[in-house]
Amino acid sequence: MEWFTENWTPNIKFSVRIKEHLHSETTPFQQLEVYDSFELGRFFTLDGIMMANEKDEFIYHEMIVHTPMSINQNIKHVLVIGGGDGGSVRELTKYQTIESIDMVEIDERVVRVCQEYFTITTTGLNDPRVSLKFEDGLAYVKNTQKVYDLIIVDSTDPIGPGEGLFSMEFYTNCKRVLAEDGILINQHESPYFEKESTEMKRAHKKIKSLFPIAEVYQAFIPTYPSGHWLFGFASKKYHPIKDFKKAHITSLGLETKYYNGDVHQGSFALPNYVRNALKEV
Amino acid sequence: MEWFTENWTPNIKFSVRIKEHLHSETTPFQQLEVYDSFELGRFFTLDGIMMANEKDEFIYHEMIVHTPMSINQNIKHVLVIGGGDGGSVRELTKYQTIESIDMVEIDERVVRVCQEYFTITTTGLNDPRVSLKFEDGLAYVKNTQKVYDLIIVDSTDPIGPGEGLFSMEFYTNCKRVLAEDGILINQHESPYFEKESTEMKRAHKKIKSLFPIAEVYQAFIPTYPSGHWLFGFASKKYHPIKDFKKAHITSLGLETKYYNGDVHQGSFALPNYVRNALKEV
Repeated sequence: MEWFTENWTPNIKFSVRIKEHLHSETTPFQQLEVYDSFELGRFFTLDGIMMANEKDEFIYHEMIVHTPMSINQNIKHVLVIGGGDGGSVRELTKYQTIESIDMVEIDERVVRVCQEYFTITTTGLNDPRVSLKFEDGLAYVKNTQKVYDLIIVDSTDPIGPGEGLFSMEFYTNCKRVLAEDGILINQHESPYFEKESTEMKRAHKKIKSLFPIAEVYQAFIPTYPSGHWLFGFASKKYHPIKDFKKAHITSLGLETKYYNGDVHQGSFALPNYVRNALKEV
Repeated sequence: MEWFTENWTPNIKFSVRIKEHLHSETTPFQQLEVYDSFELGRFFTLDGIMMANEKDEFIYHEMIVHTPMSINQNIKHVLVIGGGDGGSVRELTKYQTIESIDMVEIDERVVRVCQEYFTITTTGLNDPRVSLKFEDGLAYVKNTQKVYDLIIVDSTDPIGPGEGLFSMEFYTNCKRVLAEDGILINQHESPYFEKESTEMKRAHKKIKSLFPIAEVYQAFIPTYPSGHWLFGFASKKYHPIKDFKKAHITSLGLETKYYNGDVHQGSFALPNYVRNALKEV
C-alpha cells in the first residue's frame, strides 16, 4: 500500500503516503492498523478511521485535558472513557494534584498495540495513580459507585464500539457519578461536513438537556475531517469562561505545544454557523 | 476527471469528487479551471491550487475584511491587491462608510471567468464605489500617489504571479501608501505543513521589521492545506485586540456566517507552536 486514504465524506478524500504498514489486527471489537508515514510519522486507525498520529496528537490530547483542569484546581479523581492510546492519561499525569485516574477502555488490544507501536501517547499508563479497566464504558458508568471530579469521554465516532458513548443513558450515568462540581468533557465531532455535524447536534441536544452548563469548544486538528474539531464542556457548577483564571494556568508552568490561556478563551469563540447549528437543537 | 486532487504536501493529498469540469483556460499569467463538485459546490483553481469554493469561501472573505473594519470605523479608502474572485470586495461593500475600493488584480481573466462561473463572490464588483485595475499590484503600490486607510493583500501563494506580493519591496510600498492610522491585512499562509509554515515565517519577519504592530490571526478554512489558515494584521497605530470594541461591531448588525466579536478576539489566540514559530523570526 503506497497511500492510506480516508473518506472524509463520500465525496472528499484525505490521503497519506505510507512508509510502512507496521501492524494489522482484527480485535474482538474492531479492525486495528498501525502505519508509519512520511508526513505524520506513525499513526493508527480503527475501522479505517485515523485516530491519532505523531505529528498532531498533542493538539487533541492537550485540549481535552487542560481545558477542564484549568477550571477546577481541586480535581482529584478522574475517569477516562475510551482513550486507548493513553494520550489523555499522559496529559492528566502532569498534574500532581490528581490522586486517581481510572481509564475504562473496551478494547485492551488498542492499549497493548499502542504500547508496542505508538509509544508517544502511552508514557503515562504506568503511573501508579492509573488503573486500567478493560470493559464497556457504558456499563461501567451504570454500575460504579465511585464519584469523579472529571470525566473525559475520549471516544471514537458514534459508530461501532463508540455508539453507546453518545447515548442519553450514558450521559445520564455520567451525571450521576460526577461530583456536584464535576466536569464532563467529550469529543464532540465537527461542524463542517454533514455526518459529523449531525452527530455534533445530537450529542449537544442530549448533554444540554441534562446539564445547566453545556458549552462547546474547538481546536485546529488538521488530520481529522475538515480540521475543525469540537469538544463538549458540561458541568453543574463551572462555566468554562466565567470561571477561568488565566493567571492560575500560567502559574502551573505546564509545557504545552498547543494549549495556553488565550487559546482556552479563544476555543469557546465559535463561528456564527457553528453557534447557529448548536442553537437549533 | 472524476476527482480533483491537490497535493497539500508531496505526502498528503486532498481530493474532491467532481460533478462537472465547467471551464479551462490558460490566461497570460496562470492556468485557470472551474469545477462543480458534489461536496463543495463550484470551485476554481489557479495553477492546480483551489482558490475558493461555494461551501466555505465565506470564512476567508469575512475574516480578511471584518477583522480590520471592526478596528477602525473611519476607513474610507480601501485598496485590494489580488482578490480576483471579488469576495473581499463583496464584504467591503457592506459598509456604507467606505467611499472608494480600488481592486488591483493582475489577471483580468480571473475576474471575468468568476463573473461567469463563480458568481457567489462577484456580486460587489458592480458597486459604484469599486474601481477595477488590471495591473501588477507590486507596480501599483510603487507608483500610486493615493493614500489608503486599509490595504487587503488577497494573494495566491508566493509562487508564480503572487510572488512579488510577499516581497520586502511590496510591503515597504504598502506602508508608504497607508494613512498614518492605516491597516495592512495579508493572507499569511499556514503554520502546519512545512512549505506554508516557511512562507508564514518569511512574511512575518518582513512585516514585523516595518510595522510597530504586526500580529497574526487564524481561521478554520477546511479546504486549504491543514484547515488552519492565517492572516496578518499590521498597523502603525491600531492594535487588533487592544483597540477592538465588541459593542461597535455588534451594533453594525452585519449578517455574517463566520465572523463575530468573540471570533475576532479568539482568532488572535494562537497555539503555542504557532506563537513560537513566529517568535523565532
